[in-house]
Amino acid sequence: MDDDDLRRGRPTTHRAFGEATAILAGDALQALAFEILADPATDSIAEVRAVLCAGLARAVGLAGMVGGQMLDLDAEGATAPLSVKEIARLQAMKTGALLRFSVEAGSRLGGAGAKAGAALSAYGRAIGAAFQVADDILDAEGDAATLGKRAQKDAGRNKATLVGALGVEGARRELARLVDEATSAVDAASLGAAGDVLRATARFVAERKK
Amino acid sequence: MDDDDLRRGRPTTHRAFGEATAILAGDALQALAFEILADPATDSIAEVRAVLCAGLARAVGLAGMVGGQMLDLDAEGATAPLSVKEIARLQAMKTGALLRFSVEAGSRLGGAGAKAGAALSAYGRAIGAAFQVADDILDAEGDAATLGKRAQKDAGRNKATLVGALGVEGARRELARLVDEATSAVDAASLGAAGDVLRATARFVAERKK
Repeated sequence: MDDDDLRRGRPTTHRAFGEATAILAGDALQALAFEILADPATDSIAEVRAVLCAGLARAVGLAGMVGGQMLDLDAEGATAPLSVKEIARLQAMKTGALLRFSVEAGSRLGGAGAKAGAALSAYGRAIGAAFQVADDILDAEGDAATLGKRAQKDAGRNKATLVGALGVEGARRELARLVDEATSAVDAASLGAAGDVLRATARFVAERKK
Repeated sequence: MDDDDLRRGRPTTHRAFGEATAILAGDALQALAFEILADPATDSIAEVRAVLCAGLARAVGLAGMVGGQMLDLDAEGATAPLSVKEIARLQAMKTGALLRFSVEAGSRLGGAGAKAGAALSAYGRAIGAAFQVADDILDAEGDAATLGKRAQKDAGRNKATLVGALGVEGARRELARLVDEATSAVDAASLGAAGDVLRATARFVAERKK
């Protein structure tokens, strides 16, 4: 929807294969995600499979990814920039909901108890938010060669980013806060050494260069 | 994907609201379909909900609607027209799979037994095929005012339609055969008067003017 030529240094799907094929590829992959979650091979308990399908549907639908993307498109055409609170809500929907669901799905499939499940849900929410703030910072500061996509593509547009609302330094502080929040949530889940990969993921989200 | 201006006499979504909004509306509605099927209010038995989600995923994914649409796009660019068998397969995927799933979902939610379920599945397959043949005939013969969309839009293009492969009269015979097949399947399901709406639906699919 940003009509960009590159993602992670490779041509975007609609550039390489055409818009119709790109739309169909997205639709096919979304259906495949539900097919996998509903497959008895994913979990032998039907209740778990049904709950996962419902969770993915909410994460990608109007209350999640699609709704957030729509708010983002609306913000571009709006006369006044969004407030920090509005941007945080938009980003929680656009990318946060799906990242959070991914963590929650793993937590459920892994048989986490109520306390660990709640902590992992908080972790998912924090890294979802951190991912998007890091993306905004990379977009404002990165160069296209490292980034593998067009940089500063939001410059001069009324785009809903925390860098625009808080400045780069403010966004960096928010990112650090979110990584701390994610790390504390992993501690609260009492996973022992099994939590290390989640801590490393939180750092990766904040420190990635593309 | 046919970039048409009208559907059923009203502006297409991408003309009225833009392409990005149209794509997001489709994505949101697809997610909503899964959300409804996975909702305990739809059926109290989790196994039923999980099976419905899996069935919808297959009907709309690569083996169904998306795959059929992709074959259709490929056929337009191909040098040789598709065979009748290839067209039937494409149409069974593109529109047939979703119509068939809709009937099967109703049959399952309504608690149909094995015999009635198999008969209703055959009915769904037949009206799915009939719907698409009727669409091809309307497109070849209809005028835009009645049809509510551009007519003869496939003229001069290498489009996968049974009218192209069998001629209008051949397509009409195929349509009549499919309606008979659907009606016989309703009889085989032994639904009594409850089957009347299904018989009427089969006739509607064949006789609709737009």
